[in-house]
Amino acid sequence: MDPPAIRIVLVAPQHPGNIGAVARAMKNMALSELVLVQPRQFPDPEATARASGADDVLAAARVTGTLAEALSGCGYIAATTSRERDQYFRVIDVRDAAARIVAAAQHSPAAVVFGAERTGLTNEELETAHALIRIPANAAYASLNLAMAVQLVAYELFRARGGSVPAGEPHAAPLASAQDMERLFAHFAEVLEAIEFRDRTQSGTHLMARIRRFLQRAELDENEVNILRGILTAVQSRRRHAGEGQR
Amino acid sequence: MDPPAIRIVLVAPQHPGNIGAVARAMKNMALSELVLVQPRQFPDPEATARASGADDVLAAARVTGTLAEALSGCGYIAATTSRERDQYFRVIDVRDAAARIVAAAQHSPAAVVFGAERTGLTNEELETAHALIRIPANAAYASLNLAMAVQLVAYELFRARGGSVPAGEPHAAPLASAQDMERLFAHFAEVLEAIEFRDRTQSGTHLMARIRRFLQRAELDENEVNILRGILTAVQSRRRHAGEGQR
Repeated sequence: MDPPAIRIVLVAPQHPGNIGAVARAMKNMALSELVLVQPRQFPDPEATARASGADDVLAAARVTGTLAEALSGCGYIAATTSRERDQYFRVIDVRDAAARIVAAAQHSPAAVVFGAERTGLTNEELETAHALIRIPANAAYASLNLAMAVQLVAYELFRARGGSVPAGEPHAAPLASAQDMERLFAHFAEVLEAIEFRDRTQSGTHLMARIRRFLQRAELDENEVNILRGILTAVQSRRRHAGEGQR
Repeated sequence: MDPPAIRIVLVAPQHPGNIGAVARAMKNMALSELVLVQPRQFPDPEATARASGADDVLAAARVTGTLAEALSGCGYIAATTSRERDQYFRVIDVRDAAARIVAAAQHSPAAVVFGAERTGLTNEELETAHALIRIPANAAYASLNLAMAVQLVAYELFRARGGSVPAGEPHAAPLASAQDMERLFAHFAEVLEAIEFRDRTQSGTHLMARIRRFLQRAELDENEVNILRGILTAVQSRRRHAGEGQR
């Protein structure tokens, strides 16, 4: 089985032992691309010890300063969470998520993002993902060890790659990259500011966060992002022309 | 979910840390009955540390001198192995094995037996089992960490018992109705007309059809449709004010 274009991203891992255990879990399931965002301590002898025979994965691990860098070039992005309260996100069972990720990775690199041991991912970090992965677990004690969570996701990915017919890929063009999505959101925010749009719904969630979440659920491809960017630009330029007329 | 009559048996575990990690993995998947056959070192602070919030599973663990004692009272017994060479055994994929074990546990206690970290189970030990469990893994690096193997088996048992993630409902508000969506699309088209936006991408699909499809993929709820309608109205009203200024 060729190594797939699937990246495992750990955000702020606190225990070097877990990083090593993750490398081993990945290699057991034929994954090789590990990215660490601001690891507390790496490299570290404890990581090397726990990696066992997977020191090649550890040696090839990239360290980045930001999640955005870690996701550079990625299309489909899934993030893990054990929280129940995340609203407006698409939440998928790990088994279905694995099928989706494997299908997406045929077109452009995909990523699975894991948060720090105690704190998990912030809402802002979750919003970089198209969907959140939920691992079924005991409701009374649902928080898995970080490396265990990676093991379960890697296992389902391994099965999804070896298993049945690949799930449908709805897109003709590649999925928009994380950078494209960030630029789209920034552009969107700029236009909302310009048209002085204020949210009057009582949703309890900040407006841009809400917009991010539903646009991530749409799993936009590059063409679709270009269409939206084009519309935003048209809104801006019409306003500029109109503004000139007013002088 | 009631705790099932499924016993996890570790034969001669060498690392106390692994015993702790096993306890946590079990509790995460709602298993509680752990039996240790001649553990090298137990109890141990490292085991307690790695058990995290699963110290109750650890405290209730039984220690026995023989595998036979550990299996006392059990009906169906499955054993794990990463070896390919075990002949004349029934070998079952972990997913199918989980279904079999859960069915058997309705009638009498079942057990899953794991060998020591480096050496695994002897042929004599494997022969106490009705079947051998195989976990799919990278053929070039198939040996999983002991606690990881327990985690994967416990996860499949949890699923087989009916534990799964409730199908995702990300929404606080009801999904927007078909009429709401039609009104949104009509409004969207009106604004595109007003800002004189023309699609310059070569997508081959008519612009509004494209927009409809990606907004449908987002599965918008009523609030989200209201947000988009509000933005469209804001674009229109700013243009009207600006237009008045031009006269």
